[in-house]
Amino acid sequence: VLTKRIAVLPGDGIGPEVCAEALKVLEAVSERFGHQFELDVQLMGACAIDATGDPLPESTLQACFEADAILLGAIGDPKYDNNPAAKVRPEQGLLRLRKSLGLFANIRPVTAYEVLLSHSPLKSDRISGVDMVIYRELTGGIYFGQKGRTEEGAFDHCTYTREEIVRIAHLAFQAATTRRNKLTLVDKANVLETSRLWREVVQQIAPEYPSVAVDYLFVDNAAMQMILNPKQFDVILTENMFGDIISDEASVIAGSLGLLPSASVGETAALFEPIHGSFPQAKGKGIANPIATILSVAMMLEHFGLQEEADLVKEAVDYTLDKKVLTPELRADHPFTTEQVGAFIANYV
Amino acid sequence: VLTKRIAVLPGDGIGPEVCAEALKVLEAVSERFGHQFELDVQLMGACAIDATGDPLPESTLQACFEADAILLGAIGDPKYDNNPAAKVRPEQGLLRLRKSLGLFANIRPVTAYEVLLSHSPLKSDRISGVDMVIYRELTGGIYFGQKGRTEEGAFDHCTYTREEIVRIAHLAFQAATTRRNKLTLVDKANVLETSRLWREVVQQIAPEYPSVAVDYLFVDNAAMQMILNPKQFDVILTENMFGDIISDEASVIAGSLGLLPSASVGETAALFEPIHGSFPQAKGKGIANPIATILSVAMMLEHFGLQEEADLVKEAVDYTLDKKVLTPELRADHPFTTEQVGAFIANYV
Ligand SMILES: CC(C)[C@H](C(=O)O)[C@@H](O)C(=O)O
Ligand SMILES: CC(C)[C@H](C(=O)O)[C@@H](O)C(=O)O
Repeated sequence: VLTKRIAVLPGDGIGPEVCAEALKVLEAVSERFGHQFELDVQLMGACAIDATGDPLPESTLQACFEADAILLGAIGDPKYDNNPAAKVRPEQGLLRLRKSLGLFANIRPVTAYEVLLSHSPLKSDRISGVDMVIYRELTGGIYFGQKGRTEEGAFDHCTYTREEIVRIAHLAFQAATTRRNKLTLVDKANVLETSRLWREVVQQIAPEYPSVAVDYLFVDNAAMQMILNPKQFDVILTENMFGDIISDEASVIAGSLGLLPSASVGETAALFEPIHGSFPQAKGKGIANPIATILSVAMMLEHFGLQEEADLVKEAVDYTLDKKVLTPELRADHPFTTEQVGAFIANYV
Repeated sequence: VLTKRIAVLPGDGIGPEVCAEALKVLEAVSERFGHQFELDVQLMGACAIDATGDPLPESTLQACFEADAILLGAIGDPKYDNNPAAKVRPEQGLLRLRKSLGLFANIRPVTAYEVLLSHSPLKSDRISGVDMVIYRELTGGIYFGQKGRTEEGAFDHCTYTREEIVRIAHLAFQAATTRRNKLTLVDKANVLETSRLWREVVQQIAPEYPSVAVDYLFVDNAAMQMILNPKQFDVILTENMFGDIISDEASVIAGSLGLLPSASVGETAALFEPIHGSFPQAKGKGIANPIATILSVAMMLEHFGLQEEADLVKEAVDYTLDKKVLTPELRADHPFTTEQVGAFIANYV
């Protein structure tokens, strides 16, 4: 029996709704297994800007430092987009949170659920059986380099140190050894010096994992292969900017954007969130799919070492998919609401 | 009746084969309409490294400067890949050619051919009717910024000047006015300063094209939308690196990688090439699809102001598709060879 403290950041748009359902499921796990989860709910994102002027208030950051794990809903509000003059943006809070907590590895499993194949934009034979996990570097590269304006224009600097590559590369290789023993590095080594460094480091580390076959793909080719033959991928390793693009591309091929969880981990901290955004148009309508957030809770349980509990949550989700207890984007006729899906899964647990 | 000088760079892999067929078609145009095309065939890419040590020998560059247009096959050879130590790479020749000639706009039309819908990895309803053109900035950004190593790692600098954005933005807006009057800027303005500059410049220019509706998409979202709903796109405008990724992604959704041409233009120079690579495994087998290169010749004819001639080449290609005179990747039973497809199209012309 464990006691864990969890910082909960529901965020904006549909974030609070999907978080509420994920917490229902966590509560059910707690009841069934006797664990104690202490929740500390905090503001972050546009709602935090509205309330405090800061997308990541000091108290929120503090709560995250003190927690064993963080559950995030989603952040972002259209009133801060398309406005190059906006000085404060919800995204800044997210970037600062990642950097402050040292969450250097973003981990995104992408699975094709057989019952959902008809919802994929891809033909079923291309995606049936897809099962990959993407390791995206999350606190380096062009996201965090120097940026600014000059007389004539603007600049963004991309930098990587060896050490930044080494630590996430080990995580990705280790993951490969527990899976199908294949690792694909996605880079642009024919053009970028940082990519050549990534390739060098990965080539140096590879001998430590003799069971893992390593493959190298230029990012433009990877963007094509993701559509042409996504089954070829097992573990993908890549830098921050390419990971942003490739992992979002990967997330839609399986037709299950609302089902995909993610973990962002560092030496000590760990954050779990659905990969979908705050989807403001859907806010308050009861149509948001809570499953991605619920599966993020399953990743959190695994992170706590609670494998049985995590497996039970995943089993509950599979059952829900089988029974077609689904929100409207996956079931047009007689769809279920966000709350009904959450309750069904919590009940199974 | 025109006289034009064309530098021909067949390049590596299947490059020479597809160029040969495109030149057959150009010859047919010349015979039918009485134009004179003077060809100047030159080395470039891996074959140029092998012959001279330089992927872009001085004589090749000189020929390109003196030509009215350049036709490129494809460059690249596996022996120069996956070798971070290789000091000379075929790609360097291409990048230097683009920069030396000031080819700042890469233009890629992506069309879904109805007869090929069954070959798309996407379901037909998603792609039927897709018709977009991508304007990728080609001589700025992280490709051409300072790059190098430091004690601990490596760096690549991305810079853009206002002027670099202005000139391609005008081309893209002009294209939109001759099409469906929609322009989508793809950037990462929530993170990058250069992207915020792109957004600013595009917002400033937009009023000069009141008929054009402007849309802004973050690149990660664009990578998703390209799969979920590619029909929404008319003209896409984007910077160099994002353009590399998004245009390659776009090229496979229609199931017709071997059919897509491109133009790269500057103030004075213009280069035409298929978007596919050198595909070394297919070299010499007669299985390479020459249509992308033939359609690149059609774009060249348009560039010369020869609209009737260009339309005739496109009509010939449509006829070829209708009659299913196709290479193996598009026709498994009784496929035609590279030469047969080229001859069929040249003959129609
Ligand atoms: C909101 C944005 C800064 C963020 C990113 O680009 O990292 C998001 O797209 C993501 O992938 O988590
Ligand atoms: C070969 C490479 C340097 C090039 C690029 O990235 O620009 C290619 O991928 C392209 O898109 O023409």
